Amino acid sequence: MLNVLCVNLYAVGSLSMPFNEVRKDYLLNRWVVIATERGRRPTDFAKQDRQKAKTGVCPMCPGNEYMTPPAALAYLKSGKGVKKAKDKDDFRHRNWLIRCVPNLFPAFSPPKGKISRKQICRGEDLFEAVGHHEVLIESPNHEEHPAVARIPQLVHVINGYVDRLRELSAKPYVKYVSIFRNHGLEAGASLSHAHSQIIATPFIPETVETEFAASKKFWKENRECVFCDIIEKERDGPRLILENSKFFVFAPYASVNPMEFWILPKKHEATLLGLSQGEVKIFAETLKACLCGLKQLVNDPPYNYGFHLVIDKEARDYYHWHLEVYPKLAIWAGFEKNTGMYINTVTPETAAETLKKAVSS
Amino acid sequence: MLNVLCVNLYAVGSLSMPFNEVRKDYLLNRWVVIATERGRRPTDFAKQDRQKAKTGVCPMCPGNEYMTPPAALAYLKSGKGVKKAKDKDDFRHRNWLIRCVPNLFPAFSPPKGKISRKQICRGEDLFEAVGHHEVLIESPNHEEHPAVARIPQLVHVINGYVDRLRELSAKPYVKYVSIFRNHGLEAGASLSHAHSQIIATPFIPETVETEFAASKKFWKENRECVFCDIIEKERDGPRLILENSKFFVFAPYASVNPMEFWILPKKHEATLLGLSQGEVKIFAETLKACLCGLKQLVNDPPYNYGFHLVIDKEARDYYHWHLEVYPKLAIWAGFEKNTGMYINTVTPETAAETLKKAVSS
Repeated sequence: MLNVLCVNLYAVGSLSMPFNEVRKDYLLNRWVVIATERGRRPTDFAKQDRQKAKTGVCPMCPGNEYMTPPAALAYLKSGKGVKKAKDKDDFRHRNWLIRCVPNLFPAFSPPKGKISRKQICRGEDLFEAVGHHEVLIESPNHEEHPAVARIPQLVHVINGYVDRLRELSAKPYVKYVSIFRNHGLEAGASLSHAHSQIIATPFIPETVETEFAASKKFWKENRECVFCDIIEKERDGPRLILENSKFFVFAPYASVNPMEFWILPKKHEATLLGLSQGEVKIFAETLKACLCGLKQLVNDPPYNYGFHLVIDKEARDYYHWHLEVYPKLAIWAGFEKNTGMYINTVTPETAAETLKKAVSS
Repeated sequence: MLNVLCVNLYAVGSLSMPFNEVRKDYLLNRWVVIATERGRRPTDFAKQDRQKAKTGVCPMCPGNEYMTPPAALAYLKSGKGVKKAKDKDDFRHRNWLIRCVPNLFPAFSPPKGKISRKQICRGEDLFEAVGHHEVLIESPNHEEHPAVARIPQLVHVINGYVDRLRELSAKPYVKYVSIFRNHGLEAGASLSHAHSQIIATPFIPETVETEFAASKKFWKENRECVFCDIIEKERDGPRLILENSKFFVFAPYASVNPMEFWILPKKHEATLLGLSQGEVKIFAETLKACLCGLKQLVNDPPYNYGFHLVIDKEARDYYHWHLEVYPKLAIWAGFEKNTGMYINTVTPETAAETLKKAVSS
């Protein structure tokens, strides 16, 4: 892995000529062909009209709380401050800032009563779908998506992620908590009200497990965190988008999505649980700046983002949480689905160059 | 792996009640939650209107051959028979049945002159994108997709796949040939004329490599092909869709796509190269029947299909070629993309039950 970083990090694709190169992810055995089509620029992905989710009564808007199950978490307005909902009535309260409710059609559901590991894992390769599946409603305002959110509101959202992560990761049957966001119908958001999702699973999913294993191997070989190393190596390179006092944003070397970017904390931490309120605020500002730049550049594209983190304390040294943002500007089709290999028509260098401009303008 | 087959093969999901279970693929470390939404039936996926590719001058229609590069392969009408194009003029001939042309924006391109392995692989994790990327135009008739194709025409298509596979796999820099089809704009087909794609790569892509390795391991442990074993195990089970003299069609145990099905030849062969003309005809009939059933059931859904095969002779014993068909009825979003784990809202048992009816009606 170190080789990748040393040898290839400064490979550069340019806008002006077709450029084809096969690259491997920093940690995963995931390959991508960076294959630029002649003359295609990032702004060419901007669509005039995007498919929109059906409108109708929004179950996430204030006043429609009866349409969702009672919240697992709610922040309520309290004078000039915020309080967490505590009693049963509070969870149906209308005066909320954010709400986190169980998904009506959960992929994973809490166990009924106590459950042993043996009951969850019914065979080597068969698990009960025991866990949690929640929807975090990010604002009472239907359209308050992160790219346009007020910073104090986005701070509530990040705090909501952290609170749910803390509670869910403490449950004995939970081995991983995936916190993610789908934006736009084409990226899988069937409801247009600003929301994220949280899925807690009884095992560590494959991509994350592979990433853990590779980062652990790197740490054992180098006594250094591979993500800290990536920050050092990418810092002065052509894929840097933004760096501030606490966060580092760049287009990864082997991006599988056009305009993909990752946000890494500069402080080495395996999970979000150690974030101070100051860091949460800077994270909110960083996230908003990047998503706002993306929105302006490609006309509010659909995207998915997801946190990568570990809850196992053993991983504290070698894992480093981060957020991966995947704009949905291409379709993974027969080749990608059958081979596990990707084609990306925008070089990460071009993505970084254009996003950097958009973020700073 | 054997355990999976023995223990879990008869797990059954029913239409009438919500059913959540986490399953692992026969060979890959790929997990899916089978999570049925209450009361959702396969036919609920049928859309009235599907997004369509832009219309305009079709570069694949007869008369527009000048819009594509010269064909690498063409079958021409010849009296009552068929002949393969041989000289330069033939490749621009208008009287064609199928044509296979280089992709205008290739992900992989042929080397200029002789190239050594060392020149292709410029580092452990960096390859030149050397290979081939072709488009197989399946018929002079714009809309002659496999679900509605005349069988003799579909036979030409399969023969075209085999011919290109034979030629491309013989090249010293080619390690894998991916033959696949994107149907419908939402599945990545930007042009609506019936066509497939063929990509030859200088290494074996990850999914296929993992599948090879797992099937080799199974063979070493059991002296039996894992796919032959799957046929035996699935034969009398709830996931069988169709069986004829030469092929076996079923919904795989851990399908990651709603209504996914695989077509396996009953004869153990690692590649398509050994198909007799009789087998090609039966394969064309089987493929048409299944895709026609799918089309009727879910109103011509977008889909991707891809062949899995090996060209390395060493794999002859343990690998078994097949076709995987992935209807595109759901969107892989933040959870899938960040975790490598999937959510499928239709049980494979329900998929098989409904497809079986549609195919036989």
